[in-house]
Amino acid sequence: MGNSIRVVQLGLGYIGLAVHEILKERPAFEIVGLVDTDPAKAGDLPGYRISAGVGEALAETSAQVAVVTTTSRMESITPQVLDLVSRGLSVVSTCEELVYPWDSHPQQAAKIDAAARESGVAVLSTGVNPGFLMDFLPVVISRVARRVDSVLVERYQDAAPRREAFQRKIGAGLTVEQFQARVAGGNFGHAGLTASIQLLAAGLGWRLDKTAESIEPVIADRALKTDYLAIEPGQVAGVYQVGTGTMGDRDVIRLVFRAAVGEPKSYDRIHLEGDPPLESIFNGGVAGDVATGAITVNAIPLVLRLPPGLRTMADLWPAF
Amino acid sequence: MGNSIRVVQLGLGYIGLAVHEILKERPAFEIVGLVDTDPAKAGDLPGYRISAGVGEALAETSAQVAVVTTTSRMESITPQVLDLVSRGLSVVSTCEELVYPWDSHPQQAAKIDAAARESGVAVLSTGVNPGFLMDFLPVVISRVARRVDSVLVERYQDAAPRREAFQRKIGAGLTVEQFQARVAGGNFGHAGLTASIQLLAAGLGWRLDKTAESIEPVIADRALKTDYLAIEPGQVAGVYQVGTGTMGDRDVIRLVFRAAVGEPKSYDRIHLEGDPPLESIFNGGVAGDVATGAITVNAIPLVLRLPPGLRTMADLWPAF
Repeated sequence: MGNSIRVVQLGLGYIGLAVHEILKERPAFEIVGLVDTDPAKAGDLPGYRISAGVGEALAETSAQVAVVTTTSRMESITPQVLDLVSRGLSVVSTCEELVYPWDSHPQQAAKIDAAARESGVAVLSTGVNPGFLMDFLPVVISRVARRVDSVLVERYQDAAPRREAFQRKIGAGLTVEQFQARVAGGNFGHAGLTASIQLLAAGLGWRLDKTAESIEPVIADRALKTDYLAIEPGQVAGVYQVGTGTMGDRDVIRLVFRAAVGEPKSYDRIHLEGDPPLESIFNGGVAGDVATGAITVNAIPLVLRLPPGLRTMADLWPAF
Repeated sequence: MGNSIRVVQLGLGYIGLAVHEILKERPAFEIVGLVDTDPAKAGDLPGYRISAGVGEALAETSAQVAVVTTTSRMESITPQVLDLVSRGLSVVSTCEELVYPWDSHPQQAAKIDAAARESGVAVLSTGVNPGFLMDFLPVVISRVARRVDSVLVERYQDAAPRREAFQRKIGAGLTVEQFQARVAGGNFGHAGLTASIQLLAAGLGWRLDKTAESIEPVIADRALKTDYLAIEPGQVAGVYQVGTGTMGDRDVIRLVFRAAVGEPKSYDRIHLEGDPPLESIFNGGVAGDVATGAITVNAIPLVLRLPPGLRTMADLWPAF
């Protein structure tokens, strides 16, 4: 289609493939290039050529938007985004730290922002969490409140039906010692709690004095089995993570992420204390992987309309 | 404050006063004028001067935004908005029909749109319902779905604790014959179901073939009493209204509004059928009056950032 939006994809891991499937079924988009450093990815995508870099992918064609699903970290995504922006491409990403990097990585954020403004394009990172459930959606709900005093979001998930990589990521099947070692090694559990806290605070117009995160194992009290692993009583069934945002001596934001094999009930709960108090419950929860693929694709028309620069989901409905 | 947003208010009825209370407590805004055709409104607002028209209100001062809470009807709001826009003011309104007038009143909508573009300002109508709960919020939630097949929204309210005007508006205390006569007379019950259907469809990128609305009385099965009225068994306790949007032979949108004295449970439920199915429940419901005041005030920063023209809430996150 002549009027379709021309998209190049960078990163063909699990989320990249989910994005790819949704892009393919929407006539509004045309996939003009696929980039991954691993040539073996071609096996997952028969009929497509996988390029090693974006220069190669766009050598004989052009794109308006790059969807970048390569990494969770600012350190590794910054050079990728700077390169894409210098080529005049708008960027939608699922990089967790890029969802709200202004507090955690101010220098890289400023660099991306300046480069995007110079090229006249917008850069936006999103996803179901961070990017929607614990931050953007509570901000949207807050817009019908006269006053918000505090926000609590709980995301409880039974990990039993989830893919193996997810079960491994939350530590299911590890001993408590192994779990603690993985925590000490970093890059473990749900990434993005702090980004959610900071995005939520920005959307509410709050200046936090402090943010904090904790992570603990959920211990199996009985033998558990999934399609991929067996968990003995006393071993780890999953994670319990809490993020808090503090103003003065008050914890005004509390985000709880608990994902474990055998968790009795999956749900998401957003509770705003204030006038009026507001509470939204998603029974069964919002499915993680499809939802992240969908919001990423749905963010493409958004990034093409936002003012140039590094944007966040809070820019959709700014605080006063 | 030098940097505050200068606001003039038109219409000081119940919603106008709710907006006024919230504007007053937010330092981001400065109320520079109040307009109402009824000079007796000055009694509700000691310390303020009430002007009969916007020309008088702005004779010796200027404003950036007009908040218009005067009417539910396009016919009466169109000349007001055209006048405000010609003065270079952005407009936030709670006029139900203006929330999505493109299908129901295309000529007036085009006229407002052209005038707003010419003046370089935006016009937006919102509210808790229409404007948020049955339309904008389902659109926001749909952005994490790969595919939406149909949308159901239920808003069930116990009217017993609400203000008298609300109880009267839903027909509480009438006989069934009186209720039917009021329905035949028009301008009765919840206004805005069709506007919600059309806004929701626009946000989902759907082209509806048909919309329909029905209204029936909820009959009291026992004696009921509120602070304002007594209802005998067999008399009307409230309204049951259903709006549907159809594509081909499928009802893809169903909006149910039921408000009655003695309704056992107040709640709002948004259900999206699709991949994945998504359901958000607000137990207790989203309070109508405070919420409409709040979203109206919170829409002011929005209207100052939207592109010039007649805008709808669906423009915040456009469909592809």
